[in-house]
Amino acid sequence: MSLLFTKLSNIQCYRCTRNMFFSRISRYCTNKTGSDSTSRKEEWPRRVVTGLQPTGSLHIGNYFGAVRRCVRLQEQGEDLMIFIADLHALTTHQDPSELQDNVLELTACLLASGIDPSRSILFLQSAVARHSELCWLLTCLATHARLAHLPQYKEKAARMKEVPLGLLLYPVLQAADVLLYGATHVPVGADQLQHLQVASQLVRTFTHRYGPAFPTPKPMLSDDCSERLRSLRDPSKKMSKSDTDPKSRILMTDSDETIELKIRKAVTDFTPQVTYEPDTRPGVSNLVAIHCLAEDKLPEEVVEEADGLSTAQYKRVVAAALQRAVGPVRDRARELRAQPDLLRDVLRHGAARARPRADEAYGRAARLVGLAR
Amino acid sequence: MSLLFTKLSNIQCYRCTRNMFFSRISRYCTNKTGSDSTSRKEEWPRRVVTGLQPTGSLHIGNYFGAVRRCVRLQEQGEDLMIFIADLHALTTHQDPSELQDNVLELTACLLASGIDPSRSILFLQSAVARHSELCWLLTCLATHARLAHLPQYKEKAARMKEVPLGLLLYPVLQAADVLLYGATHVPVGADQLQHLQVASQLVRTFTHRYGPAFPTPKPMLSDDCSERLRSLRDPSKKMSKSDTDPKSRILMTDSDETIELKIRKAVTDFTPQVTYEPDTRPGVSNLVAIHCLAEDKLPEEVVEEADGLSTAQYKRVVAAALQRAVGPVRDRARELRAQPDLLRDVLRHGAARARPRADEAYGRAARLVGLAR
Repeated sequence: MSLLFTKLSNIQCYRCTRNMFFSRISRYCTNKTGSDSTSRKEEWPRRVVTGLQPTGSLHIGNYFGAVRRCVRLQEQGEDLMIFIADLHALTTHQDPSELQDNVLELTACLLASGIDPSRSILFLQSAVARHSELCWLLTCLATHARLAHLPQYKEKAARMKEVPLGLLLYPVLQAADVLLYGATHVPVGADQLQHLQVASQLVRTFTHRYGPAFPTPKPMLSDDCSERLRSLRDPSKKMSKSDTDPKSRILMTDSDETIELKIRKAVTDFTPQVTYEPDTRPGVSNLVAIHCLAEDKLPEEVVEEADGLSTAQYKRVVAAALQRAVGPVRDRARELRAQPDLLRDVLRHGAARARPRADEAYGRAARLVGLAR
Repeated sequence: MSLLFTKLSNIQCYRCTRNMFFSRISRYCTNKTGSDSTSRKEEWPRRVVTGLQPTGSLHIGNYFGAVRRCVRLQEQGEDLMIFIADLHALTTHQDPSELQDNVLELTACLLASGIDPSRSILFLQSAVARHSELCWLLTCLATHARLAHLPQYKEKAARMKEVPLGLLLYPVLQAADVLLYGATHVPVGADQLQHLQVASQLVRTFTHRYGPAFPTPKPMLSDDCSERLRSLRDPSKKMSKSDTDPKSRILMTDSDETIELKIRKAVTDFTPQVTYEPDTRPGVSNLVAIHCLAEDKLPEEVVEEADGLSTAQYKRVVAAALQRAVGPVRDRARELRAQPDLLRDVLRHGAARARPRADEAYGRAARLVGLAR
């Protein structure tokens, strides 16, 4: 699974410039109770909108960074909308039945993790036509030059013989996704920050030309290490679903035995002590990072607890922590995955709740640009 | 008003290679009763879809070339869908209230000309969300290279400092417009032929990748001279709504007196005889062309009838013919324009009839690409 907005990483909070890496994930800097003068000034109700792309094979980095993050936002009482970005998935070639499977798998994982469809609005992007409709309006405001210079586009386009236009328009659809619901806050990772800036710029252009229709969405930067997980076989590389060695990553479908085996085989170094030194000891530090995510602790805490353990002994601790953290989610997701009709009903229910909100914002925008209604 | 697909001009029929310039417009080469083995082979029901862009200030060239052409297609018994392309209009900067006025003015003109909303389906593009939705699916199949090399785009983009992406995607939305209704035939002018080729190419790509969802739309080329009308003040230029001299064109809102005045002041030359020699005598030939359109005749017929008349006398004949042809449409359009609620109701009614057709084709395409429904 690659994630739409929720690739997290180590950058400063946009508001207080606090460096957020490795403080606890529950201490999001854009805390609901914190002051947020900007969005108050604009008088738009606080709303968090996030999209997850259904590309299959969720690994634990994706789970902690995206899925569990959504659950925590829900638990913080946010007005949260989560959509499964199947329209975005189409920008790269997808096998149609795999796409459907991936949608259901992600839905199952979200529900198993604690997303409550009566509190958060969980839906499929393509089920709300307004995403595409607003995307067209924004396409008429976006310029080719601006989008063609985004690093992600340049990087992906450079590897392709024929560049699908969907790739160029990816950030415009992302903008539509969040503006459509009047998102005031959007969870993002560092690599998506520029895409959110495109959205902000489109809000400015729209407002300047036609009048106010949308709040300017603000990034919510995370403070955990979920995006920094390394390959278990080669800690110089990131944990990735596209790595050819399946032992390099732990998937959300892995059994407790597989988790234990993969952690046991994880490459470390010849120093037996457990320390957190990502630059010089990436292997063991990666285990510390996994441990932190699984038990929601800081590195110094888990390192202190591991005092006296060898890395071999510590691996058993990490495996057990991970089994406790993801095992129940995995088992519940498997049960849910066996009930595709239930999952589809949940998504349909979510879309029915999302549509009136989308109608409101789109209607406002359409009236302003002069589309007769 | 610039026209979406219905800019007509002098090119050969795609099927019989007959040169179609200046045979009567009622003799469309893709005549309903004519054989059409290609679309039969594909077993898609014959359907004509055309879009008119609401950019205001309809002149007589627009009227004869686009509006009256639609009426004739309806009279030939075609399964005809006409949409007012307000989403396309947004690709250039529009004043919102002007856009609404232009939509109503065009609707009034179409109804006044004889479009019967119980026979043809007349609707507003933006009222059917599937246009934008299918546009996104096609955007994921289109390539930047193919679109950036279209002459119309290159020409328009060259004149702009910042090129809106909507301009690049214009032909993709056009493709969505016609594929959405399974159009088998699309009225086009020469300058739009390449855009229709983009649509055909997208059908091929879609079919190859996912399976058949759409017929390949075929161009319907016209055989009249409506697109070749010249400026009445400077016959070296085309009649255009953007000409600074209002006497250069006859608008559909012009009174009989204004029509007579503008024709009387039309620049001709110092030869008094009426002949049809567009290259050497563009001024008087332009009057012949207007006369042909107004009375639905061929140049040789009107030239023969004008034998013995001076150009000054002939101008009175042309003015009278034009008054008879467009006067009743103008008067009826003015009455209709005073009933905006009626016009909006007609468009709403049309959209309600268009939607089930759009749902069918979009549903088929969405299922094939793997969007869960």
